[in-house]
Amino acid sequence: MRMKVEEIAKIVNGKVIGDNNVVITGISGIKEAKEGDLTFIANRKYLSLLKSTKASAVIVSPDINNTGNATLIQVENPSLAFAKIVSLVGPEPIKFAPGIHPTAIIGENVSLGKGVSIQPYAVIEDGVEIGDETVIGAGVYVGHYTKIGKKCLIYPHVVIRERIKIGDRVIIHSGTVIGGDGFGFATVKGVHHKIPQIGTVEIGNDVEIGSNVTIDRARFDKTYIGNGVKIDNLVQIAHNVYIGDNTIVVAQVGISGSTVIGKNVIIAGQAGIIGHITIGDNAIIGGKAGVTKDVPPNVHVTGFPAREKWQDMRVHAYLRKQPELIEKIKKLEDRIKRLEERLERLNENKAKND
Amino acid sequence: MRMKVEEIAKIVNGKVIGDNNVVITGISGIKEAKEGDLTFIANRKYLSLLKSTKASAVIVSPDINNTGNATLIQVENPSLAFAKIVSLVGPEPIKFAPGIHPTAIIGENVSLGKGVSIQPYAVIEDGVEIGDETVIGAGVYVGHYTKIGKKCLIYPHVVIRERIKIGDRVIIHSGTVIGGDGFGFATVKGVHHKIPQIGTVEIGNDVEIGSNVTIDRARFDKTYIGNGVKIDNLVQIAHNVYIGDNTIVVAQVGISGSTVIGKNVIIAGQAGIIGHITIGDNAIIGGKAGVTKDVPPNVHVTGFPAREKWQDMRVHAYLRKQPELIEKIKKLEDRIKRLEERLERLNENKAKND
Amino acid sequence: MRMKVEEIAKIVNGKVIGDNNVVITGISGIKEAKEGDLTFIANRKYLSLLKSTKASAVIVSPDINNTGNATLIQVENPSLAFAKIVSLVGPEPIKFAPGIHPTAIIGENVSLGKGVSIQPYAVIEDGVEIGDETVIGAGVYVGHYTKIGKKCLIYPHVVIRERIKIGDRVIIHSGTVIGGDGFGFATVKGVHHKIPQIGTVEIGNDVEIGSNVTIDRARFDKTYIGNGVKIDNLVQIAHNVYIGDNTIVVAQVGISGSTVIGKNVIIAGQAGIIGHITIGDNAIIGGKAGVTKDVPPNVHVTGFPAREKWQDMRVHAYLRKQPELIEKIKKLEDRIKRLEERLERLNENKAKND
Repeated sequence: MRMKVEEIAKIVNGKVIGDNNVVITGISGIKEAKEGDLTFIANRKYLSLLKSTKASAVIVSPDINNTGNATLIQVENPSLAFAKIVSLVGPEPIKFAPGIHPTAIIGENVSLGKGVSIQPYAVIEDGVEIGDETVIGAGVYVGHYTKIGKKCLIYPHVVIRERIKIGDRVIIHSGTVIGGDGFGFATVKGVHHKIPQIGTVEIGNDVEIGSNVTIDRARFDKTYIGNGVKIDNLVQIAHNVYIGDNTIVVAQVGISGSTVIGKNVIIAGQAGIIGHITIGDNAIIGGKAGVTKDVPPNVHVTGFPAREKWQDMRVHAYLRKQPELIEKIKKLEDRIKRLEERLERLNENKAKND
Repeated sequence: MRMKVEEIAKIVNGKVIGDNNVVITGISGIKEAKEGDLTFIANRKYLSLLKSTKASAVIVSPDINNTGNATLIQVENPSLAFAKIVSLVGPEPIKFAPGIHPTAIIGENVSLGKGVSIQPYAVIEDGVEIGDETVIGAGVYVGHYTKIGKKCLIYPHVVIRERIKIGDRVIIHSGTVIGGDGFGFATVKGVHHKIPQIGTVEIGNDVEIGSNVTIDRARFDKTYIGNGVKIDNLVQIAHNVYIGDNTIVVAQVGISGSTVIGKNVIIAGQAGIIGHITIGDNAIIGGKAGVTKDVPPNVHVTGFPAREKWQDMRVHAYLRKQPELIEKIKKLEDRIKRLEERLERLNENKAKND
Repeated sequence: MRMKVEEIAKIVNGKVIGDNNVVITGISGIKEAKEGDLTFIANRKYLSLLKSTKASAVIVSPDINNTGNATLIQVENPSLAFAKIVSLVGPEPIKFAPGIHPTAIIGENVSLGKGVSIQPYAVIEDGVEIGDETVIGAGVYVGHYTKIGKKCLIYPHVVIRERIKIGDRVIIHSGTVIGGDGFGFATVKGVHHKIPQIGTVEIGNDVEIGSNVTIDRARFDKTYIGNGVKIDNLVQIAHNVYIGDNTIVVAQVGISGSTVIGKNVIIAGQAGIIGHITIGDNAIIGGKAGVTKDVPPNVHVTGFPAREKWQDMRVHAYLRKQPELIEKIKKLEDRIKRLEERLERLNENKAKND
């Protein structure tokens, strides 16, 4: 990579504060940056790093203009602008040419769109439909009658069971299993009898699903993942869960059966949500939170059992104050004891005087 | 689907309360049900939904007879009865015809029962035994000398390592790994030396194991999963763990090495259990609980560190009462201050009077 | 197995306390041991089991010499010594003969060292380099330009994406995904735009990685796993994480993006660590801990939010004392009430007397 700040600013439609002619030779994070690097700040909390960074140029939001040593490039969305440059100068992404590898096994009545790529050892069962320009990675299994949309990228070793419906431009990372049976049993005298899971999974457009995720098929009807939802690695989504558009689910989260998650919700890492509850739009669930009841829209909950964040912080503040409280009670006891003794003496004196 | 309530009642051996001739055209959950649907109540806590449901018929237990608008079908076990109807009217389950796909690789001295189905790209190593009517899904790997029983259903991409023993009618979902090495090292001067894990895994009959589960082989002897155990997705079971019959392990639970779990235990989602302890029969481990010591039989523990549920609830009740407590202490301080002042005045008066 | 204690002592360079001629016919854990078994104690906390064990011989550290009934074999490192015997008498480890299985697919410009074994249905993309004597298991996927060192053991169904670098003697268990895209999005008006993850993953020598682990590729630069690091099953390691040499990461741990972990750290099961923080060398992170800020070297933290262990224990001690505290406050209230009444009476008497 070898570009002037001027050229970069033109690409991202940004305004340069400082030297237009600085030459950029690499990209990196603001902490790791060295001379010649371009970096960015997405979040004002890293503002202090602007002074110490060794980067030669930093993409920032329009409200940041104290330069430190680096030249600044002001843009509306620094993350997005940086991503644009990264994809321009990064290594060529791996492309999978259209066509069906001779080792792929294609069932009967399979419908493949234009420009589809089916990689080695993929198994496509009967009745599957795959949209234009979708890539099915090596060793992927696609079950009977499943429909996958256009321009999807299914990485190696994904398993998608039968009768699943997946939208357009969906990315699914390796090892993920879509449509395994929901976990449901009827227990008679201590023995658990399997309840058939005859529903399906429906995944919207522009969804990205990480590695080794599990999304179970519904008992009946469907487990639903809305448009634009982003799911990180090792997440568990149980049968009949509903996730609204553009919600973010971070790694190792578990969502129990039939729970309804709103739109634009953020569920941070390792949180767990019990079944049959509702999380409102724009809610935020803190990392490791254990959510045991409905969360209203726009509310931020943390802790276990999850409470509104300010309540949870108060509980922790109380816990920190506990030694002080115990000390205080001890002092009160002493004062009461002294009061009792003084009263005793008063009474005794009074008795003597009487 | 198109059946009269009368016909359904006959199939599940139930008693109709209401109109025998209502026509059922679909099945669903009680909340999502619409006119024409059959649904059920497994749990009295959903009793209130009976009034509001739009379902035309509801399968219930014999003690429920207030109808709301829906016709009731009373049966001993509503879950089980509903499951029976679901499996009758649901889509035809996918069947895998007996036979060995030409791309499957079968090692030497492999013994295959009658009616076994080996799907594409499965790899069966030397000395494996597979019982009658078992299905080995696409891309499944079965290691050397492993024995799998009759009528098992091993979904695509399961890995079963060498010398494992699996019973009859076991279902294993995609991405699960059985018999990976246990996590054991001997540390000498900060360097970790691998301890050979020469044991195995033994899985009983009628076990179901979810997707992307990991069950490690024992250091020596075996990791054991009892008959009728049901394990949800993304569960970790470490080396030398023993799980008693009919225990239920919900998603993302982790059980550390050499721990012994009794029969009919329920371990709720994301709970963690440390190593070398014993969980008694019929115990219940709450969701997200962190179990750090033995749990006696029939005890319900929750929280982290896990305590008996009533104790844990009391701790949380105290935490909720903490603001009140602090307020109370403040008031006590005021009262003591006033008492001290009054005593002071009494003494001053007394001094004056004396 | 049939060996005299004498012979075993010679192999592990140990000193026998007791009968040299005892015949050993099996090996097992100290609790499960029966007559004829050899076992060991790695940890003084199991010392009490020495009296009750049925084992015929026990490998111990040099400071243990009270025998119970068993003959003792004293060695410097009992775990390591026991491992040595176990590997001698255990079943023959499965060996994969060198050579490329005819069904393996090898891309262009692939460089394979001497004695490499490529098992059935493995897919090796263009430009891959694999070192001497490395085993690539059945169905493994190795992406473009990835380099794998010497004597590695990659179990079936591992996915290693493009441009990854793996050292020598690395073991990776089944279902693990190395180099999936990091989880990064730039959000504009509620819509999440993918940030390209153009970095890579670099894994040192002598690393072992469990089953169904996910290690994401960096946004830029690399996610780094140091020499001798051991990672258990179902662990999540996010983009740009750095893990120092010989650190141990137990099952189901999650480490968020850009966090730096020191050397010889122990992270116990189900712990979660937020992004962009630093964990010092030799730190210990307790099971299920939720680490929200830097941890200095040599410090042991537990709980959520994670605190130094003694602080966390104090908080839990306070919680246990809470009922007592409430009782105490109630008693103080009573005493104050009595004091107030007595003062009242005093004043009344005084008023009468005046």
